[in-house]
Amino acid sequence: MNAAYYVGNKTFRLGDAEPVKPGPGEARLRIAYCGICGTDVHIYHGQMDRRVHIPQVIGHETSGEIVELGPDVTGFQVGDRVAVRPLQPGEPSPVDNGCSHIGQNLKFLGIDTPGAMQESWTVPAYTLHRLPASVSMLEGAVVEPVAVACHDVRLSGLREGEEVVIIGGGPIGLLIAMVARHQGGHVLIAETNAQRIALARELGFEVVDPVHEDLPAAVAAFTHEAMADIVFEVSGSAAGATVMTQLPRVRGRIVLVAIHSQPKPVELFRFFWRELKMIGVRVYEPEDFDEAIRLLGEKALPLDRFITLVAPLADIQQVFETIDSNPAGMKYLLQCTEGR
Amino acid sequence: MNAAYYVGNKTFRLGDAEPVKPGPGEARLRIAYCGICGTDVHIYHGQMDRRVHIPQVIGHETSGEIVELGPDVTGFQVGDRVAVRPLQPGEPSPVDNGCSHIGQNLKFLGIDTPGAMQESWTVPAYTLHRLPASVSMLEGAVVEPVAVACHDVRLSGLREGEEVVIIGGGPIGLLIAMVARHQGGHVLIAETNAQRIALARELGFEVVDPVHEDLPAAVAAFTHEAMADIVFEVSGSAAGATVMTQLPRVRGRIVLVAIHSQPKPVELFRFFWRELKMIGVRVYEPEDFDEAIRLLGEKALPLDRFITLVAPLADIQQVFETIDSNPAGMKYLLQCTEGR
Repeated sequence: MNAAYYVGNKTFRLGDAEPVKPGPGEARLRIAYCGICGTDVHIYHGQMDRRVHIPQVIGHETSGEIVELGPDVTGFQVGDRVAVRPLQPGEPSPVDNGCSHIGQNLKFLGIDTPGAMQESWTVPAYTLHRLPASVSMLEGAVVEPVAVACHDVRLSGLREGEEVVIIGGGPIGLLIAMVARHQGGHVLIAETNAQRIALARELGFEVVDPVHEDLPAAVAAFTHEAMADIVFEVSGSAAGATVMTQLPRVRGRIVLVAIHSQPKPVELFRFFWRELKMIGVRVYEPEDFDEAIRLLGEKALPLDRFITLVAPLADIQQVFETIDSNPAGMKYLLQCTEGR
Repeated sequence: MNAAYYVGNKTFRLGDAEPVKPGPGEARLRIAYCGICGTDVHIYHGQMDRRVHIPQVIGHETSGEIVELGPDVTGFQVGDRVAVRPLQPGEPSPVDNGCSHIGQNLKFLGIDTPGAMQESWTVPAYTLHRLPASVSMLEGAVVEPVAVACHDVRLSGLREGEEVVIIGGGPIGLLIAMVARHQGGHVLIAETNAQRIALARELGFEVVDPVHEDLPAAVAAFTHEAMADIVFEVSGSAAGATVMTQLPRVRGRIVLVAIHSQPKPVELFRFFWRELKMIGVRVYEPEDFDEAIRLLGEKALPLDRFITLVAPLADIQQVFETIDSNPAGMKYLLQCTEGR
């Protein structure tokens, strides 16, 4: 077996996949590791069965080595170690406003197309970012989620010394916390899960459990009454949408990271009263991948504790079941091939 | 009589007020005109009885002439014609983020303190903006609402040629439309009141009635499928809060102008999906008053039709009753003294 197929009904089947010959502008990778994203868990739960094409190999957080190049690829060579920015822009639309990373006709590799939970993956070469020797293949597989955090922090406009509150200390919240702290933010995390609270504290973060403590009061104390310059809403919860407007100071920014699938009551009055800003953020742009690789190469983020488990691809079913039974876990990685 | 007092229960009483001797840093004005703000109507309706001090003279949209200066006032002379920026910053608070115009301890002149619906009004001299000869006293009384629009458009970051949708064609919505158009925006107004629709069309604006037309489809047609760069939510309605997220293109901005007194369901997903921004805006800063006076001096805005009625202060009760019975009216002004 060299591939894992999502077949619906919370089930993966191991199987074989023929390597796809790279066409013009494409590269074929030998996948080293593939991380499991929250979106992959949604797919596993059947919530995206209308979008994926069952049976489908999924996965998009990956590192690998180029093993074959199609025609017309410049700037890369066979043997290059790379991470994949899994966005395939489609035909530009007037609505896109020039933002191809979230254009109307965007395809997300590994969701809208076959993914990386296999030995061999063929992708457009423009999605590749070369990994320097200072970044391991294991680290390479977390470039994608770190790039999400880099994008979110970049669009927040964070300046050194600013007060930052992160609502939700899951994988993305924790990465945002790390990147924001590295850039000089004074970071407080709001999280309700005891294991996640413990992990964030081990990593040196101050953490509040809003179930047991009044979050606005805790933010006031943490900031010496100044309240937050930036609030990242990463929880996706109704409670998060309610409290997020209570935390910023005048002209503070709320960065909306989470996917809120349903409309939620929001205290719009606070936007008026304190001239708040809300900034929606989604995925990443090439510079965010560059920044993530730079941070990983410099070992700037404490990622050891971020990686909960590395397991062979053959164990995929068990790993997804483990994720389901352990909501406090952070990043789970599948090793798709032996090797470096 | 030389003053009108709000006495509660939808009632004004005419009476006399002793001129207040200006203290250090203050100026006493002979009021020419005082406009009636939506907030004044809220006061009339009793909705702010806990904030005002009955019996109270209210009013804050005003023009007048300096008739007396207290000690330590520089830069102004008796006889100067002025508009008043009715904000009295209090003790700075850490939450304020340096924004004294919306600080925690701000007092709003004419709401938290006695107002301008009288012959003589004494205010801090730092609130004054001199009117050039090109701006009449009548125009001077609309500097304040025009400054609101200037502030809102400035914080929107409007660039020439951008597509602008304004939800709500009342007084502030219409002024925002005028200012945005003057600055090169391509403006569409969404409004449901037939008289307001007619007025906006007379002023050359394209208008959609979202009760009878699909607003997102109308915005798509107006913008050749590009959708809006900027949406001003000025309606304060639940429908406005629902539709505002449907109108912007990728990275479009929603400017929240209206006072939404209750939390409302907001489609947060769209902020994520299109990386939208929302920008809360409130009152104005000194530069917005300067810009409003400049626009008025240049006759840049078609304000003749904006002024619905000018009546003597003695008619105040009747004017407020007229406003109540004619929700389509725009700006009502009270003439507080005879004169220029």
